[in-house]
Amino acid sequence: MPQKGIITLPRSVSIISAASVGGVEESKGPLGGSFDVVDAGGDDKFGAETWEAAEGEMQRRALATAIGQALLTEHDIDAVFAGDLQNQCVGSNYGLLDFDIPYFGLYGACSTCAEALILASAYASGMSSGPTAAVSSSHNCAAERQFRYPVEYGGQRAPTSQWTVTGAGAFILSTETEPTGFPKIVDFLPGRSVDRGINDLNNMGAAMAPAAIDTLKRYLDASGRTPDSFDMILTGDLGVEGSRILRDFMPSAASVHEDCGLLIYDTAATDKHAGGSGCGCSASVLASVILPRMGLTKKNVPPPDGGRLCDILFLATGALMSPASVWQGNNIPGICHLVHIVAGGGEADE
Amino acid sequence: MPQKGIITLPRSVSIISAASVGGVEESKGPLGGSFDVVDAGGDDKFGAETWEAAEGEMQRRALATAIGQALLTEHDIDAVFAGDLQNQCVGSNYGLLDFDIPYFGLYGACSTCAEALILASAYASGMSSGPTAAVSSSHNCAAERQFRYPVEYGGQRAPTSQWTVTGAGAFILSTETEPTGFPKIVDFLPGRSVDRGINDLNNMGAAMAPAAIDTLKRYLDASGRTPDSFDMILTGDLGVEGSRILRDFMPSAASVHEDCGLLIYDTAATDKHAGGSGCGCSASVLASVILPRMGLTKKNVPPPDGGRLCDILFLATGALMSPASVWQGNNIPGICHLVHIVAGGGEADE
Repeated sequence: MPQKGIITLPRSVSIISAASVGGVEESKGPLGGSFDVVDAGGDDKFGAETWEAAEGEMQRRALATAIGQALLTEHDIDAVFAGDLQNQCVGSNYGLLDFDIPYFGLYGACSTCAEALILASAYASGMSSGPTAAVSSSHNCAAERQFRYPVEYGGQRAPTSQWTVTGAGAFILSTETEPTGFPKIVDFLPGRSVDRGINDLNNMGAAMAPAAIDTLKRYLDASGRTPDSFDMILTGDLGVEGSRILRDFMPSAASVHEDCGLLIYDTAATDKHAGGSGCGCSASVLASVILPRMGLTKKNVPPPDGGRLCDILFLATGALMSPASVWQGNNIPGICHLVHIVAGGGEADE
Repeated sequence: MPQKGIITLPRSVSIISAASVGGVEESKGPLGGSFDVVDAGGDDKFGAETWEAAEGEMQRRALATAIGQALLTEHDIDAVFAGDLQNQCVGSNYGLLDFDIPYFGLYGACSTCAEALILASAYASGMSSGPTAAVSSSHNCAAERQFRYPVEYGGQRAPTSQWTVTGAGAFILSTETEPTGFPKIVDFLPGRSVDRGINDLNNMGAAMAPAAIDTLKRYLDASGRTPDSFDMILTGDLGVEGSRILRDFMPSAASVHEDCGLLIYDTAATDKHAGGSGCGCSASVLASVILPRMGLTKKNVPPPDGGRLCDILFLATGALMSPASVWQGNNIPGICHLVHIVAGGGEADE
């Protein structure tokens, strides 16, 4: 069967700004000092009246912060690509309503951050447009009551279950490459849906890992590169279970593999079971501590720990199910979109 | 404030194939003879066990038919852009799972058909990719029980309410323009969210009309063209209420305005209140009776009534709400994406 190829952007796209938002639990975690915005109220409401509206407010603050850091205004942005986990994506719909920016709503479950980066970079590069934006988010309490139980119910969680991150990330992408110090998206590989028969709502890592393996293998085959030729292979939210599956099937990737769902919490000490998940997990980790190690400087936030990263693969995975679809007896298909990012000032080894 | 401009595709994109699927009520309507696929079982289940799975099956058949009519296989398609109204877009997620095609999930409510056409054409044109596909659908019974009440409940409907179409449409887009007889997407204008304070779940036409007016006015201003210079200005599902608002505010457009929600049913005679709605409304109408009047020929389906259309604007509108967001006191923002389509063999007057 013909290989669905890696897509190289006709003009490379710089990530000229990125902003992260973190909730209470996320602020207490190892990345807590690196978020651009945290909830001053300490209740994950971000000043809103409902969890759902709080998620919209997180997206609003993430995009406003990212636009401001890029020294732009909303009128400079030609399109925003956004999504979240709420039914009908209302986190994005309402959160970004105040911006006078053409709006493309996306649904890629937890893969939405990478889906948005792909489409925003393809649009900026291919349509010769001005800067574009990619935004995604999740909120623990909004997700819990929609997908499982209201948090007030206090239901016991399975050991394989993950903790939906209360977080958001926004990215501004531009083909105007002066100055050249910004991280660049050079190519990408869109994911295809993969169904391996997983139907356990409490084990999303297992449902998503086969998609991550499928996309990563296709990328390595098509590029002719080995995992250790990258500084990092960063998955979005495979967590403990999914990361173990990925490393079991692709042991050559284990030494450079990191997972946003394992980076964001002190998982064992804070009862997060199999780690973080959600559209906001990969988005907030990429924006807070990964891109600053690739040449993106931030005001008001200290540089994160860790050495410089020159060449990474960012793979965000999603589980393409709804509660109703699982109750009706369907499996949980996964999808994984891959974005290849290189540090500013240098190109990837090809 | 700077005008967000019309985006002209760097290479024009042909719609080389389009397939429509219609349910029982749609088959009885004025367009009934023009659908490529109808439900042989006569119960809107399309052989599936649930309404939700039936919608997936409709997407599957729409895309399979469109690919077949284009004399391609799934392996020739570089990406599919798809969406529907179900929570987490599971109609698309499961319906397209069988295809080995990179998948981008979209949520634009009832505007998804135009959003998908924009992104699929931008991707094919800008990324120099092979053919791409755009698919969208809705199912009356799946939508009713998710957004309102199960149909078995027999709730009385408001006079301003619309009837969610059981239908789907799939389109194959290609930059390879030989032969040149196919309709072409030449440019587009993405929509921005518009909130005019409408909060009546039973009057989507009123919620969406301001977005249609916003996008259409911006397009006419930027292009310098008048409404009567187009053969048709086709909105997606404004229905009786929304169409009246559009024509009241833009009387110059009234003579060329048509609405898919008014074309698909014999509205008054069949108790459809304010007309059809849903992602599947605009998609099935465009694929069944509009594109064949623009140079797209179909096997097995007779040519539709009506003269040749050379130059049309297709505007699909969506209401960016969820039931929960309205219960929580939010307004219903609308959005409208515009696609400019010209007939094969001729270019639009500029």
